[in-house]
Amino acid sequence: MPYVNIKITREQEALTAEQKAALIKGVTDLLVAVINRGPKTTVVVIDEIDTDNYGVGGETITERRSRGQ
Amino acid sequence: MPYVNIKITREQEALTAEQKAALIKGVTDLLVAVINRGPKTTVVVIDEIDTDNYGVGGETITERRSRGQ
Amino acid sequence: MPYVNIKITREQEALTAEQKAALIKGVTDLLVAVINRGPKTTVVVIDEIDTDNYGVGGETITERRSRGQ
Amino acid sequence: MPYVNIKITREQEALTAEQKAALIKGVTDLLVAVINRGPKTTVVVIDEIDTDNYGVGGETITERRSRGQ
Amino acid sequence: MPYVNIKITREQEALTAEQKAALIKGVTDLLVAVINRGPKTTVVVIDEIDTDNYGVGGETITERRSRGQ
Amino acid sequence: MPYVNIKITREQEALTAEQKAALIKGVTDLLVAVINRGPKTTVVVIDEIDTDNYGVGGETITERRSRGQ
Repeated sequence: MPYVNIKITREQEALTAEQKAALIKGVTDLLVAVINRGPKTTVVVIDEIDTDNYGVGGETITERRSRGQ
Repeated sequence: MPYVNIKITREQEALTAEQKAALIKGVTDLLVAVINRGPKTTVVVIDEIDTDNYGVGGETITERRSRGQ
Repeated sequence: MPYVNIKITREQEALTAEQKAALIKGVTDLLVAVINRGPKTTVVVIDEIDTDNYGVGGETITERRSRGQ
Repeated sequence: MPYVNIKITREQEALTAEQKAALIKGVTDLLVAVINRGPKTTVVVIDEIDTDNYGVGGETITERRSRGQ
Repeated sequence: MPYVNIKITREQEALTAEQKAALIKGVTDLLVAVINRGPKTTVVVIDEIDTDNYGVGGETITERRSRGQ
Repeated sequence: MPYVNIKITREQEALTAEQKAALIKGVTDLLVAVINRGPKTTVVVIDEIDTDNYGVGGETITERRSRGQ
């Protein structure tokens, strides 16, 4: 019954529904494979975050992208 | 002074402002009733999540809805 | 299938298992009553936080308690 | 490598990209100054929350604003 | 640079350091495989939660375990 | 009334109560300085995470420390 929250930036090329479904299935399968926790009530929530609102190393992702990183 | 975060799916029939206010009042009252924590600085945040971004049992809620669950 | 996270301070008189069970049942019932979300896969996680690690108004709860608040 | 999540209400006058960048830089610098944690992989995520979805003291911020608070 | 938080119950047989490392590596690899996000600054945090503090379906996991679920 | 959550590793030399208080005061002051949000109900929660439970770049912090990073 684990709970998983994934926060990723919302890029110009948005995540597709298929990619989100693959993340949800993949992380649920991973938890079964590694720690054998029953998957039925595993909950996964994906938060897509604007690049202005996500910072790494003291800079927003928008700033990092503008510098080519 | 508890902090409460509620994550729920954003369905076709959106939550009304009244429902959100009732959740915020209800959970604040519950914390007073059960553990007698002062309500003045209790913070409640409701996150509404797209059904593509919320998974249970390895499937997105979109997939579950399409199967009638 | 909502997910709820409750963060509360860990006080000298600890929460009992009965209080935690009452919070979990109470918030699950509230979600059914207010927005009619199916309770079977509702997940509730309670985090107990040391009073040194919880701040309100720029002060730790430890500091507030020492001033009688 | 700390992780910081900031949740604030989305007001009529939206946060600017400059304000968000200043929050991200400021909190990263604070962590270096106070606890000397390496900033390169410090992650900061800002969530902007509708005032209907944010409650303090059992009321939504929308309700508090309408009463002049 | 995604951020992932995994919350799981702390069971009598604790998670080993190897299992935690496998979860962290596995979820980081999954994010690269599915959405090609650079892994260097991907952050994963695992929270282990007492079974009294984790509820599913309105009951604590402690209660569910005592009923053989 | 912002809410801030800081997750940092629990190192051999633990954070002192003074450092935690400085983080809580510092981030509350930062929010006032940058976005002028009233500090009275600003909530800050610091989570200290075991180095086995915190991963960056696909590795636990324990592994990174053992390699001198």
